[in-house]
Order: sequence, then C-alpha cells, then structure tokens
Amino acid sequence: MAKQIALIGAGRIGKVHAIAIDSVAGAQIKYVCDVHEPSAAALATQCNAEVTDVSQVFEDDSVDAVVIASATDTHAPLLKQCAEHGKAVFCEKPLDLDLASARAAAAAIEDSGVLCALGFNRRFDPQFSRLQRRVARGDIGELETLIIISRDPAPPPVDYIKVSGGLFRDMMIHDFDLAQWILNEPVESVFAAGSNLVDAEIGQAGDIDTACVTLKTVTGKIAMITNSRRAVYGYDQRIEAFGSKGMLQALNNTETNLVFSGEPGIISETPLHFFLERYQDAYRLELEDFVAALESGNQPLANHNDGVLSLQLAEAAVASLQSGATETVTSF
Amino acid sequence: MAKQIALIGAGRIGKVHAIAIDSVAGAQIKYVCDVHEPSAAALATQCNAEVTDVSQVFEDDSVDAVVIASATDTHAPLLKQCAEHGKAVFCEKPLDLDLASARAAAAAIEDSGVLCALGFNRRFDPQFSRLQRRVARGDIGELETLIIISRDPAPPPVDYIKVSGGLFRDMMIHDFDLAQWILNEPVESVFAAGSNLVDAEIGQAGDIDTACVTLKTVTGKIAMITNSRRAVYGYDQRIEAFGSKGMLQALNNTETNLVFSGEPGIISETPLHFFLERYQDAYRLELEDFVAALESGNQPLANHNDGVLSLQLAEAAVASLQSGATETVTSF
Amino acid sequence: MAKQIALIGAGRIGKVHAIAIDSVAGAQIKYVCDVHEPSAAALATQCNAEVTDVSQVFEDDSVDAVVIASATDTHAPLLKQCAEHGKAVFCEKPLDLDLASARAAAAAIEDSGVLCALGFNRRFDPQFSRLQRRVARGDIGELETLIIISRDPAPPPVDYIKVSGGLFRDMMIHDFDLAQWILNEPVESVFAAGSNLVDAEIGQAGDIDTACVTLKTVTGKIAMITNSRRAVYGYDQRIEAFGSKGMLQALNNTETNLVFSGEPGIISETPLHFFLERYQDAYRLELEDFVAALESGNQPLANHNDGVLSLQLAEAAVASLQSGATETVTSF
Amino acid sequence: MAKQIALIGAGRIGKVHAIAIDSVAGAQIKYVCDVHEPSAAALATQCNAEVTDVSQVFEDDSVDAVVIASATDTHAPLLKQCAEHGKAVFCEKPLDLDLASARAAAAAIEDSGVLCALGFNRRFDPQFSRLQRRVARGDIGELETLIIISRDPAPPPVDYIKVSGGLFRDMMIHDFDLAQWILNEPVESVFAAGSNLVDAEIGQAGDIDTACVTLKTVTGKIAMITNSRRAVYGYDQRIEAFGSKGMLQALNNTETNLVFSGEPGIISETPLHFFLERYQDAYRLELEDFVAALESGNQPLANHNDGVLSLQLAEAAVASLQSGATETVTSF
Repeated sequence: MAKQIALIGAGRIGKVHAIAIDSVAGAQIKYVCDVHEPSAAALATQCNAEVTDVSQVFEDDSVDAVVIASATDTHAPLLKQCAEHGKAVFCEKPLDLDLASARAAAAAIEDSGVLCALGFNRRFDPQFSRLQRRVARGDIGELETLIIISRDPAPPPVDYIKVSGGLFRDMMIHDFDLAQWILNEPVESVFAAGSNLVDAEIGQAGDIDTACVTLKTVTGKIAMITNSRRAVYGYDQRIEAFGSKGMLQALNNTETNLVFSGEPGIISETPLHFFLERYQDAYRLELEDFVAALESGNQPLANHNDGVLSLQLAEAAVASLQSGATETVTSF
Repeated sequence: MAKQIALIGAGRIGKVHAIAIDSVAGAQIKYVCDVHEPSAAALATQCNAEVTDVSQVFEDDSVDAVVIASATDTHAPLLKQCAEHGKAVFCEKPLDLDLASARAAAAAIEDSGVLCALGFNRRFDPQFSRLQRRVARGDIGELETLIIISRDPAPPPVDYIKVSGGLFRDMMIHDFDLAQWILNEPVESVFAAGSNLVDAEIGQAGDIDTACVTLKTVTGKIAMITNSRRAVYGYDQRIEAFGSKGMLQALNNTETNLVFSGEPGIISETPLHFFLERYQDAYRLELEDFVAALESGNQPLANHNDGVLSLQLAEAAVASLQSGATETVTSF
Repeated sequence: MAKQIALIGAGRIGKVHAIAIDSVAGAQIKYVCDVHEPSAAALATQCNAEVTDVSQVFEDDSVDAVVIASATDTHAPLLKQCAEHGKAVFCEKPLDLDLASARAAAAAIEDSGVLCALGFNRRFDPQFSRLQRRVARGDIGELETLIIISRDPAPPPVDYIKVSGGLFRDMMIHDFDLAQWILNEPVESVFAAGSNLVDAEIGQAGDIDTACVTLKTVTGKIAMITNSRRAVYGYDQRIEAFGSKGMLQALNNTETNLVFSGEPGIISETPLHFFLERYQDAYRLELEDFVAALESGNQPLANHNDGVLSLQLAEAAVASLQSGATETVTSF
Repeated sequence: MAKQIALIGAGRIGKVHAIAIDSVAGAQIKYVCDVHEPSAAALATQCNAEVTDVSQVFEDDSVDAVVIASATDTHAPLLKQCAEHGKAVFCEKPLDLDLASARAAAAAIEDSGVLCALGFNRRFDPQFSRLQRRVARGDIGELETLIIISRDPAPPPVDYIKVSGGLFRDMMIHDFDLAQWILNEPVESVFAAGSNLVDAEIGQAGDIDTACVTLKTVTGKIAMITNSRRAVYGYDQRIEAFGSKGMLQALNNTETNLVFSGEPGIISETPLHFFLERYQDAYRLELEDFVAALESGNQPLANHNDGVLSLQLAEAAVASLQSGATETVTSF
C-alpha cells in the first residue's frame, strides 16, 4: 500500500512537494495542514487529501511520514514531535536558524531512530549529483580545489531578509552543504568576506548581499564559495571541481540550446530563471529518494546531521565576517 | 468531463502516448486495443482502461477521440473509420507509405470534418518550436537557407528497413515536415542524393543509409537536409536557419551540461541517446496540444494535410534519386 | 642565399603576400611590378625592392620565383611566361575564369616542369588543415558526408560581380577546392541550386547570391556546400566532416573568447570580420610552404591541377543550375 | 631614427623580447648582454646587435632604453643604474623578491623621472585587456566580485621553487597585478589559504602549490584568486568579472576551434600549452607599448609602482597564510 504522507505547510514549497509526491508511485498525501486554512483546503482538494491540524497528524497511526514545509521556526518543534511519535520525516532546510536548537532537534531525531531527510535539494540536481559521483569515483583524481558560484536573479524583499537569519544561514547554507558533500571530509576552518553592494536596504537591515567564503578541510583541500543576491542575467548556479587528474564543471542550464547569431553577437540563452525552474527535477528526485528510503530503510541522501554541519559552517562564517580571521569549525 | 480516448496500438509508441495522455488534465484513456492481446491488457491495467477491439471503439459514442499508434499499414483504414464515425483522431506518422492511399485517407478526414492531428512530434520539441516561432516572427529577417541535420545513433534491423518504405518515407519524412513548417511556403522542387555507406545489407535491401536532399521553394529559399542511419556519438538533431538578419541554430540536447577537462581534451556530453529521450517533452506536448484542440476546436499544430505534403516531398526525393534531376513537387 | 622573388601585382592581395614573404626566412622580394606604377613604387619601397616591368622579371636569371597577384585575366598569360622562362610560380586563384584557358595554362606549367603553387589559402588555415589531416588519418573513420558553410559578411559591389565569373567561379571555387581536398577522391557529379535573395542588383547582373551545391564522389561520399553573399553576423566559415567513427567540426574564429552575460542573453563574439582577418595565418603559411617547396623541390600543398579541378566543379555547377539536373564532372 | 635598445639577459624571456623588438617598427637592438657570453653572442648575431657588458650600456649615450630580462636579483640594481644614467627601462617582473628593495628601486626610478615599464604581460593579453576596458567603461555596471583562475600545466623544478620567493611572489604576483588593475581602486585587505597538495617536495622546500586568496577593496569589492602549480589539461587562465549589470568571462584560448564528436563524448581542445603560447601576442604588445611610450613620453600600461603594489599584496598574503587572519595591505 502506498505510504501515507502528511504535508505540513501549503505554501509555495509545500505545493512543489505535493506535486512531487503525487508523481511518486509508492506514496500519497493523506493530510494537508497549514495555519492558513484556505491554503490547506485548496491544496488538499488538488491532492485528494484531507485538511487536518498538526495534532491529528501525530495521532493517526496510518500516517507513515511527515513532510515539513512550514515556516522555518516550526521546523525544530515539528521534528521533535516526529521523533516523539516515531514518524519518518522529510524537513525543508534549514533545521533552524539557531544552531543550538538545530542540534537539539537533530539529537531528538537521532535518539528516536526515525528516518529523517533534509531538503538539500541541490544534491539531487542531475548535474550536481553527477559531478559529485564523478568526483567521488576519482574522475579528477584527488580533489584539490572547489569553486561554487551561486547568485540569485534578484534580492528578496527586505522584510524577508530581516527574518532570514542572514545570507550565510539563508542562502549560502545550500552551498555549504554542497561543499561538504563534494569535499567528503571534515571542513576545518572558514574564512568569510562580505559586502553590501547590491541594495543599501539590505545593509541597513544588518545583512550583506555579496560574499566570498573560503573553506579548508583537514587535509588541505580548499573550497571557495561566492554568493550574490542579484545577477541580472539570471540564476547563476555553477560548480568547478579541480583535482590532480582534471576538472569537472557544472554549468548553468537553459531552457533550450538555441543560439542566435546577429549583428550584436552570438547570443545564447540566460540560465533558467530561479530555483523552482533550475531545481525542478531535483525537487521531484528528493521526494522520490525519501519515499524509496521509507520503503528500504536506507538513509536518505541528506539528513539532519548534514543540516547541523552546514549550520556550523554558517555560524563560523558569521563569526569570521566579524573577526576578520579564520574560524575553526569545531568551535561552533 | 475528461475526454475519453481510445488508444489503438499498445507497442512502444503506444505506451509513450498512454503516459502522455495520463499526464494531461482533461483526458483519460478508456480503451486500449492491440492485435497482440496481452500487450493491450498490460497497458490497459496500467492506465485503468479497458481492453476492447477496434469495432467497439467506433460503436461507443462516449469515445471522444482515437489515438492511432498501430502499424503503419493500419493508419489509412483507421483514419477512414474515424472519418465515418466522426471520431477525432490523433494518428502517428506517416499517414501511409503510399501517397495515393495517404491522399484518400486525408480526403476522407477532410470531407468528414473530424479533427485530425498527425504525430509530427518534432514540431513540439521545445527547441525546434521556439526556432520556428522566432523565424516566423522575423528574428532572422527573411529566411534564406535552412539546414537540417538528422542522424540516428544506429541503423534499425534490415527487416525493418525492408518494410519501412525507404529512408525518405521512413526517416527523412520528419525533416521534410520540419522544413515545410519552417519554410512556411510551398516547396517547388526536390533534388536527392543518396548512398549506401553505413551498412551493406541496407543497400542489398534496396535502400540507402546516407542522404542529402535539396528543397527549393517558390520564392527561391533553399533547404538542405542530411540524414545518416548511424552517428557513433549519438542522436544528432540540429537545425540552422539563416536569413537576412541573422541565424538561429538549434543544437543537440544533452543530459547535463557537465564538462570534463583532462589530458585528452575538454569533453562534454554526447546528445541524448535517441528519439524517446530527445523528444520526451515533445511526445507529451503533442498530446497536450491534441487534447487542447479537442476542447477548443482549433486546428492541431500538424494535421493530415501536413502528412500528405511531407509524403509528396518523399516521393519527389525517391524519384529524384533515380532520375538524377530535380523533381517538381506538384507532379506527385 | 635567400630566394629572389618578383611580385606581380601590388594591390590588396599583393601587399598581403609581400608581408608574408618578408616574414619568411629564406626569401626576399627583388622586384615589384604593377600596371599602376605608384602602387608598385610604394610597395617596393616598403620591401626594399625595385620597381620593374614584367618583361624584366622574366629576363633576369637571378629571379627564382614569381608571385602573381595581378588581375585574374593576367594569370593564364603570366603562368605561360613562367613556364617558358622556367620560373617557379605562386599564382593567386583562380587560374582563369575560362576553363579552357585554365587548362592551357596548367598544361604549359605541366610540360615545362616548373614548380607551381596555387593560392588556395584556406588549405593553410590552421583549423581547416588540422581537420583535413585528422580526416585523412582516420579520426572519423571513413568520411561519409561533408558540409561546408561559407558566407561573406556583405556582397561586393555589383561592378565586381559583373566581372567575377559568377558566384561559383568566384566565391564557391574555394569551397570546391576544400571539398576536393578533404574528400580525397574524384567528385563524379554536381548538383546546384541557387537564388537571388540578398541583393536584386546581383540578380539583374545575371548572378545568384545564395547557393547550395551537392557533390557526390565515385564511392558515394556526399558533400554539401552553401554560400551566401551576406551574413550580418560576419564571415561565416565552417566545415563539418561526418564519418563512420565520428564528426569533426571546424567552427568560426573570434578575436577573443570573451563572453558577456547580461539581460539580453549570453553574448559571445561574432566571427573575425573577413578573409584578411580569418585567413591571416593562412596567407603567411601558404607563402612559407611555397618558399619551402622552392628549397626542397617538393610539391606545394595546392597546385595548378587543383585549380583546374575546382574550375571543373564550378563549370558543372553553372551547368547544373541551368539544367536542373546533376552534371557529370568529367563532361567538363 | 629607430630607438636603440640594450637587452640585458639572453635567456628564454630575453629571446622573447628580442623577437618582439625586432617586429616593432621604431626600435632595434643595439646591444645584448648576458653573464653567459655564448648566449649573448648567439642572440646578438640573430638580432644584428653587438655583444657588450652592462657598464658599456650605461656609458653609451646612443642607447635610448634598456630591457632587463636577467635574473630577478639583478632587477633592482639595474633599475637603479637606469635611474642614475637616465635610461628609459623595460623591466621583467618582479621588481625584486624583497619588498624593501623593490621600493628602493621604484623610488630611484620615480626620483630620476626615467620612463619605466614593468613586464606584467597579462595586461596586454588581448582577451584580458578587452575585459578590463569593458569593465572600466561600465559594461557590467559596478564591478562587485572578480574571480581569477590561474593554473600552470606542471610545477617547476624544486630548485626553482627554492629561489622563487614562493608561490605568492613568483606566481600569484601576476594575478595580484591583474586584480588591482581590473578592480581599479585600492585593495584594503588580503586573506590567504594555501596547501601543499600537488608535490610533496614543494612542501618540503617550504612552499605551497595550491592557494586561494581573497582581496577586499576600500569600497567592498571582493576578488578571489586561485592558483595551482599543476593542471593536467593545460595552462588554465581565466577571469570572471561580475557586476551590477552583468558578467564578463575571459575563457581559455585554444590552438583551433576544432571539435570532435565521437563515442567518448564531444571533445574540444585543451588550452594553449603555457605562458609563451598563451601570452605570445601579449609579449609582443607590451614591447610595442613600451616603444610607443618611448616615442610619446606617455606612461606605459604597467610601471614600477604597479610592481610595488603587487608585491605588497604578495607580502600581505604571505603574512595572512601564517596568521590565519586578514592582513591590511597598508601595513606592508
């Protein structure tokens, strides 16, 4: 019988997960919950599911798994409830904006033994996942340096920035996770440089919009990550892994490979607009992976521990930005 | 209520269409027919449809449309039945291998006024359709020359070749249709050169495996089409449209944009393997277009007349290959 | 001692050859001749050479070789004089616009045994020559089809068109030579399609400006050549050689590999402007090859016989354009 | 009359400059000096110059300019002699491995008022110089982040490493200069990460072979530079400038744009082998610029002050590598 899923959060990302679950053979959405009842109702109708409240989700034994797509500050409490009630869980990133809370939630999950997948969707991007596999199997020999370029098309509203936890916890968190995953060994130290160049209001809100971070692993591999909140040519998402036997580059995806040649030059397409377009396949694949994990009992590709590790890097970056020095990851 | 579709033919391409119909909101498969009953049964189960025979399809008033995915020699008779019984129809290409039969079937459709879509899936390829739209709206000024490169990864079995109608009717038919569609004016003359270079058995079966055809329109636009039955680097499907204000090129699609740099060179990926991969989106989009046409009554993007026109070009190419001269399209 | 060269013709292409000879270690220009005396004088000063008239060139035993860069109608008579006086000769293409005259000149050269190089500069383009070598050594297995795309940035003045001999003898002659060289076996038949689409005045002058020609060799290899007198994005010079083990593509050259990404798209540079820029290296290398041949006695890469062969193809194309049928090359 | 040049140093780079001077219209080599007399003699013969010793160079009033291409430790003393004797000078980079000595030499030049060009050849690379001009004229709006990737094909012998001054002073010095030039405002702070991953002997010699450095300017622009002493796919020299209105990327240059498509993938060429190939044009253009400056009295594109600035960045990087903290450039 299909796994019964309760979806908590019927906003933009909740809908993405709902569509993904719908397309996976072995799972179906039983419940949709949202603090905004009409959103829950609309999505439930679309999925042939029932609207209910969160307490019901945890009381219903027929619920096999919970998908958490609600506001960030609800993640940790909900994860704890999943741990208590023995519900497998897929949780959107981040675990929490506060490292201590994230650790507590992860510990609860760990102690309970419930299966937990964390929504680091970029690990499921067909291009990035193939790059990671090829690096892991030695196609470039020993990995030596890693460059991750990640730029959003346009900054979010300042109101979002204010509650986001800042660029490192909100945006670069994805790149920290990718870096860890591809580096495949502990990051020892972090150095962060950041500036407010894109939008003065972001600076007034106490955040940066442009950042370059250097990670160094225990064996001396070095990763450089650059983020910008605005790239006029679109969502710029690239990785370059350099090693003793070569280099692998994951380039941007475009809608088509059409090339126009005219007086102004040879013009090819800009990258896919934003994360929903670029990571469309990844959003589906991460849910497929989760449902497969539900069935097999295997670990999902990213879990709560990966969430803690990436937050640790974010904390170290925040500290480095203030201290101007490298920060040791294990201090956080 | 969802449009009720009867699917005739449960082979490889029938399955592709079944999946496509399943994903379209306003349609569902009611019946599956196949001369090989177990195939019909398996596909019917998968689609929650019933197995039936063809006569039942035409007698059941609740059937809104027929999708013909059976053997080529059944297309014309089935189209005539659709015309007689007033069933809208989506028919796989070609209409028929014989131009006279194809014309008769098209005339029956035309006289009956039933909606008919023809499976020229490449018109729905996101890249080719965007190229066509951009040419049509004048991005390259006046179109002057068109180059279509179409090469299969490997030749089909010779047994297939023997019943295929030959390269022009079986393989280049797609390119004839694309050329007509993009040229957007009558093709006046056809010249064909062909050779048997890939596989001697194909030559022994009376066919060619390598061909270059030149089309010229009434206003002097020129199209060149080249086909090969074998490209070791994969399915090579490109178009280059050249005009007074520039050029548009549709390049091959690859699974990812990963690039490896190593001692042997800078290596990027080979094209998507074959038509099911390359035209995956197109197979879905052509059924979406058909169902949308069922609802709106608008003409589908390709219909029976396009099928006749492309067969005319194929006939002219066959004749030109023998005569060594250009052949006038209207003579066929 | 450096080979003493007499340069006949001090126009644009004469200057190009003068610069090339200057840069070659084993050669120097002794004489410059031109019907327009001031041009000869200016170039002679630049090269530390003397101005003289043609008769003096052939009477001076110290002249090792003649470089013919004068008007097309002087090529054949000058070649004959070279043959008579035993002067090695580098002659700009074409031999002559008239096939019979070209044959007579080539026969005179052949009978005399003097070394003769013909200025098919594209054979010396580093990209095209590498493609030819790689095809010849079997990198793509057996060559099966060849596509040559050759488009000028803008049409020449109609006055030039009128005396040019027409597109096939004036422009496509280069592509005929490249095709022959890469195909590396006799071309058996030619089919030509052509239109007047770019500039109505060209049509009024009795010429075409857009052409697509199909060549077929004795073993069935097929080449397609397309020419246009105008490409708004610049000088488009590409070759695609397809064979049993793969494909080699020679793409356009640009001044730099700079790529701009902005709102309008990802913009790379247009091709190098025209033949003097694109074939700058080739013009130098063909003279180096000629001087090396003077020293070694080896055959140059292109000679008078290649000139006759390419004119034969041009004649066959002219005939085919009129007959609408394939023309057999050996009939010309 | 042509400017009379004395060339000091007849090694590999001295020969490169000799060829460049030879090709410049307004200059000729009068003297060649080298501590290894046969090298001087061979090069002098090739250039129609005389062999002499350094003292003669400074005593001869007919010498307009000196080109210093001798060992690094001779640069500062020779620059001082040029200052004393009022000789214009082109000096290979670096000024000196010791910042204090470099400053003293630069001060001597400054006080004397003699024209001084420094051999930061990459500023003359057609691609990099176009990128810089386009950034300067605002094509990408305000520059925000700059990424410079610079990897050698293979490490030099360890004996060279030992006297090189270390990766930052020897190799990254070029990238520091490029960064300063493109950033076009003072760099405030430097952070350096480095590892010994390529060759253990380099580590034993006290150096690193892999480095990632972050520069931050006074207005918050950020540059990231990565160096490796070994890239198996060749000399990797790229720049990516990102700004408020777009991005400019300077990609690697290859010998040709030939692309092979075969079973292993789509293979394009590796970058030009090493600096002599990649920067061939740049080596010529920097001498042209120097001779033009001799004639016009204008400043050359890079001078002694640029040499001091780039050494300051290198010193700061050395210090940062030890301290693990950002270093303020003005402290050095």
